[in-house]
Amino acid sequence: MTAATTELRVDAQRARRLGEAVLHAAGAPAAHAAMQAGALVEGDLRGRPSHGLQRLPTLVQRIRAGVLDPAATAALRWTGEAFLAVDGRDGFGPVAANAAIDALAERVPRSGIALAAIRRSGHIGMLAPYLERICAAGFAAIVLTTSEALVHPAGGRTALVGTNPIGIGVPAKPQPFVLDMSTAAISAGEIIAHAHRGATLPQGRAVDEAGRPTTDPERALAGAISPFGGAKGYGLGVGFELLVALLSATALGRDVHGTLDVDQLATKGDVLIVLDPRASVGDAVASVASRIDDYLDELRAAPTAPGVPAVLVPGDRMRGARARRQRDGIPYPAALWAQLERLEESDV
Amino acid sequence: MTAATTELRVDAQRARRLGEAVLHAAGAPAAHAAMQAGALVEGDLRGRPSHGLQRLPTLVQRIRAGVLDPAATAALRWTGEAFLAVDGRDGFGPVAANAAIDALAERVPRSGIALAAIRRSGHIGMLAPYLERICAAGFAAIVLTTSEALVHPAGGRTALVGTNPIGIGVPAKPQPFVLDMSTAAISAGEIIAHAHRGATLPQGRAVDEAGRPTTDPERALAGAISPFGGAKGYGLGVGFELLVALLSATALGRDVHGTLDVDQLATKGDVLIVLDPRASVGDAVASVASRIDDYLDELRAAPTAPGVPAVLVPGDRMRGARARRQRDGIPYPAALWAQLERLEESDV
Repeated sequence: MTAATTELRVDAQRARRLGEAVLHAAGAPAAHAAMQAGALVEGDLRGRPSHGLQRLPTLVQRIRAGVLDPAATAALRWTGEAFLAVDGRDGFGPVAANAAIDALAERVPRSGIALAAIRRSGHIGMLAPYLERICAAGFAAIVLTTSEALVHPAGGRTALVGTNPIGIGVPAKPQPFVLDMSTAAISAGEIIAHAHRGATLPQGRAVDEAGRPTTDPERALAGAISPFGGAKGYGLGVGFELLVALLSATALGRDVHGTLDVDQLATKGDVLIVLDPRASVGDAVASVASRIDDYLDELRAAPTAPGVPAVLVPGDRMRGARARRQRDGIPYPAALWAQLERLEESDV
Repeated sequence: MTAATTELRVDAQRARRLGEAVLHAAGAPAAHAAMQAGALVEGDLRGRPSHGLQRLPTLVQRIRAGVLDPAATAALRWTGEAFLAVDGRDGFGPVAANAAIDALAERVPRSGIALAAIRRSGHIGMLAPYLERICAAGFAAIVLTTSEALVHPAGGRTALVGTNPIGIGVPAKPQPFVLDMSTAAISAGEIIAHAHRGATLPQGRAVDEAGRPTTDPERALAGAISPFGGAKGYGLGVGFELLVALLSATALGRDVHGTLDVDQLATKGDVLIVLDPRASVGDAVASVASRIDDYLDELRAAPTAPGVPAVLVPGDRMRGARARRQRDGIPYPAALWAQLERLEESDV
């Protein structure tokens, strides 16, 4: 085992404290530091390290470069009865997103549906924690967000479309339905991880510079990530890119910056839609909700294809992973954790 | 060439008139007949015959069976400032959908976003014509609708999820961006067409009764359609199923009926979301719009993968097909057209 692949287990609370300390030292008020560090650690808890504490050094560099203001609070303005325009004022993504959700949750019992369009705000991290928060209040949600162009169009070979994830949350018992997926066939972080391990990629995840499908992670890094599901996934990715840019007045395609680099203002956008099921069915919402619970259980109990142990419902596996890591600690590559500890000790 | 595969070309206007005459004779007021026939012919014009006049005999049988009321007008009720609950009263889908769009377009300049949730309404047909209509008024749109369970869960083998299409429309010049796609890897109509031709299916479109991937259309018909894009497409399909059922108080999974059968009330639902870009950026909407036009052109001009003539933008190909058929006539199988003419002559 080489040093690069050595893992250690870190308690989630310790990981959060490290993140908070680093961000606080970099100038973030305590509440902002807690919100941003919490969002990162949620990525690690849910098995998506590309959204985890490995982003912390980038955030600190962005603060130092003056393109991220750790003290900024978002400016919220209702431009329609159900439309909230949010200016993140170059602050942390989770700070703007949570402020928007608070305002939407207050408005939606009256409007039935309400939307927040966020610009000038950092990466908000995984969508699942926001969806869970909204569902816990009894609402459903759709979240769209844009990213740097990393995905080629179907039939193309250069990266022109963001990985543009979608989140869908629907209240259910015992746990809400939570879908949190990108429209890319694989994440850039996963390709890099395959390259480090010397492993080949699964088929259909990426193309090389000439646009040929490749399973070689090095060639994929020189090429582009494929959309998931071919032309349909590409169509969705572009649709989300256009909707977010139009509604939040943010950038498109290769003009999207500020979540991976350390020197450019964030130009991506986020759209949060919160829905109140009571607007449709009033007090009968309980009967629809119980049908949803039954339907999700029918899926979980569905007959499987050969070799498949069980049909899953989106959110179930991630919830299991989170519970295990909450109990056993989060696995971090030793080199990453050592880097994070140096960041903590340097006191910026 | 056998009789079954002989095609003839029919002028779109003639096709519309036939549809209107048949529906009018079956009891539909002229305006309803025109709207429903128009929606069907749009399916044929855009190369999606599964949504075309081949559904006309089913609609007539549904009317005769008393499960579809051709004279019904939808009941619209604002249950929130931006939430319109629509009861289709067992009438034609396009009648309810167009009434809902009229109401949303009137409300959305004030609310910024507005949603209609439609229940007790027939199949609305292709989503693209509704999206184009909304975009022509300067608004963007997201449309979700449910269908009978025809798709197996990822890892499963029985049909438990609808083909649940999504439509996204964004105003652009010279033509709007219009995405109209189902979350199934192939339509049931396409599988039947392959069976008639004795052709094999492309890989990954369906499974047999045991859940094994199959390219044999007969085995696929005994099995289930696959979600597009594997687990991600499955996740989206379920997410849309839950959102539509929750917001419109309609059925889930195998309880969805009334678009393919001739004797059951329609229990599917539709959700239409209309968005006013001016809510976000006010008068600056023109500059965002021009960036969208440029971005779509950048995609169209993107370098291609080997053997691919050009990168497409969703909606472009279908628009071309529609223009050709509008000019040259719609190709109908001779046997289908003969059946439709008999329906017209029988005067129901």
